[in-house]
Amino acid sequence: MTGPGPADLTTPERVRAARELADSLGIDVVVVTPGSDLRYLCGYHAHAMERLTALAVPRRGEPLLVVPRLEAPMVQASPAGGLGLDVLAWDETDDPFALLAQAVSARLGGAPARVAVGSRTWAEHALGVQRAMPGAVLELAGPVVDRLRMVKTAAEVAELAAAGAAIDRVHAGMGQWLRVGRTEAAVGADIAAAILAEGHVGVDFTIVGSGPNGASPHHELSSRVVQAGDLVVVDIGGSTPTGYRSDCTRTYVVGGSADAEVQEWYAVLQASQAAATAAVRPGVSAEHVDAVAREVITGAGWGEHFIHRTGHGIGLDTHETPYIVSGNEVTLEPGMAFSVEPGIYLAGRHGARIEDIVVCTEDGVQILNNGPRELVELPG
Amino acid sequence: MTGPGPADLTTPERVRAARELADSLGIDVVVVTPGSDLRYLCGYHAHAMERLTALAVPRRGEPLLVVPRLEAPMVQASPAGGLGLDVLAWDETDDPFALLAQAVSARLGGAPARVAVGSRTWAEHALGVQRAMPGAVLELAGPVVDRLRMVKTAAEVAELAAAGAAIDRVHAGMGQWLRVGRTEAAVGADIAAAILAEGHVGVDFTIVGSGPNGASPHHELSSRVVQAGDLVVVDIGGSTPTGYRSDCTRTYVVGGSADAEVQEWYAVLQASQAAATAAVRPGVSAEHVDAVAREVITGAGWGEHFIHRTGHGIGLDTHETPYIVSGNEVTLEPGMAFSVEPGIYLAGRHGARIEDIVVCTEDGVQILNNGPRELVELPG
Repeated sequence: MTGPGPADLTTPERVRAARELADSLGIDVVVVTPGSDLRYLCGYHAHAMERLTALAVPRRGEPLLVVPRLEAPMVQASPAGGLGLDVLAWDETDDPFALLAQAVSARLGGAPARVAVGSRTWAEHALGVQRAMPGAVLELAGPVVDRLRMVKTAAEVAELAAAGAAIDRVHAGMGQWLRVGRTEAAVGADIAAAILAEGHVGVDFTIVGSGPNGASPHHELSSRVVQAGDLVVVDIGGSTPTGYRSDCTRTYVVGGSADAEVQEWYAVLQASQAAATAAVRPGVSAEHVDAVAREVITGAGWGEHFIHRTGHGIGLDTHETPYIVSGNEVTLEPGMAFSVEPGIYLAGRHGARIEDIVVCTEDGVQILNNGPRELVELPG
Repeated sequence: MTGPGPADLTTPERVRAARELADSLGIDVVVVTPGSDLRYLCGYHAHAMERLTALAVPRRGEPLLVVPRLEAPMVQASPAGGLGLDVLAWDETDDPFALLAQAVSARLGGAPARVAVGSRTWAEHALGVQRAMPGAVLELAGPVVDRLRMVKTAAEVAELAAAGAAIDRVHAGMGQWLRVGRTEAAVGADIAAAILAEGHVGVDFTIVGSGPNGASPHHELSSRVVQAGDLVVVDIGGSTPTGYRSDCTRTYVVGGSADAEVQEWYAVLQASQAAATAAVRPGVSAEHVDAVAREVITGAGWGEHFIHRTGHGIGLDTHETPYIVSGNEVTLEPGMAFSVEPGIYLAGRHGARIEDIVVCTEDGVQILNNGPRELVELPG
């Protein structure tokens, strides 16, 4: 894959920024566990496990990483090993929460009053941290960590662009796999192999919603056999070696052509997706982008069939902030990356969705998926 | 795969048992989210997502499942659809936590005082539930859900046995892939394909620790090339169509023979693993099994090189209760399933581990992995 590698993405600035933001919000310590929060802040990509691994960033003093001793060599071998973090290893019969709390209190010069944990930290770890810091109020670290992750650097946008180009190549090859007479499951298996062949290291999801299954937005795969003339929603994504995600939906007609009714509402859907994308620029709200997509569809009389939000942020997680939904007043800034994916769903019959990942730029929008957005006819 | 299918595993008894146990412990409501807790209790296997999906089991009144409306069709298509659960669908701009809290309070005839959430529920969902139930104390549902999951039914043991037999077949084929001159990564890719070919639907981990990498227990794969005479730790596992897990470690010598020192301590390791397995029976504690494994190794003078607990429970998660570790006084009961996996690690040189999944029976132990436990010599 071209573009910057992990070394460009793991920098001490991220931890420093988290500390400054926590301090400005009056949060005494931010604690994140394995998953994208930990990988983002220090480059350590670990499995979520019952044994506590946690990066603690106190508002004063040096950050520290608590890890099971048997995994300490893996920390040193990861990008985190180059950050000079204080690594506290614990043995199987130690209490890692007590170790963490003691180290944090030593740095703060007293017990913390406000402790913020990662949004996706397991409850057993979140409550373990709280138990070890009696008197502290437990809250979410979203205003610190999600806030930082939400605005991508140029290097991160390059990673997302590479992921987007790879998934576009998978869509470009769809005619090889999506054919009349094959099951959704068989098509999905071929797509999964293609996602890996195009340079992803993980397959996150392969939705192949043929005919009536296309009317269930989160349908995945089934044993249904693709019929001539089916509309088929194909929503696919994976993760790259550096952890960034792809996510792109196209809708196909297989072994036939769309009838006049489908052509009518599909044109509305395409106009909606184009209008919402064009509305992306600094200073507008996330909910405004949703409203633009929705108005086009509602105005044409299909509003009751657009049953989900317009999009979601994307980065090290497929779904992250900002969510493009009514009620989310977050103001778009350059570097925010998210999907624009309106859909129209006719229960029991079929559905369609068009999804691109886009990035808010200094003066508008950069689109990271660039395959045709028309209803692509495949030969069958 | 032979053995009982999902229909035998998803029964209304599980939810009823959770309700009775919660009631006996004075817990007002148990809330679990996507993952193994939800799959165990109601058969709904969903991705963990920012949108709230939650099964709430109040101590009085009917259980309820809160789901995003766009995923409601998936619930009905899953085994959960046959349980007659009250499904509350929420729209994109609704507050699902308020919906959940209102339904729970209506059943209890008032606000709950004690709310227990799944151990691996995300913090954002756990704190969302708490915020919607002001005044309630938040705690972990482990004493209810982990407690139930810890004791397997005969149908669950059959699933684990089928998973164990499949991973044994992968180990039996190891000589095809683990050869001198190949990288750990290449060997691991072949093993991953074999795990799927043997009937698993997911590959959970493929550890190939050759030479010095074998001394890092959680090492996964690297670009290191296997050398003649290497000791290689191979620890692999996956998930079956019904969600049950396999996990089995064997240590190989490739293109050579073990020297006298290795033979000496490997014999100690094998004796330790056999002794700990033989110690499994109803009425002994989890920590007793650990102590038996440890005493054999310590008594022979290698104690400082056995740097982890002896094992972990297994079921719908690879790691779950009971943990076989000093300090865990849980008494073994028929149906408890866990690994017995002592190891000896010589930093910078090599290591070895022997791991079987075993089940406590009415009068002793059933061993679910049955490939040779000797140091298997592969031709290279």
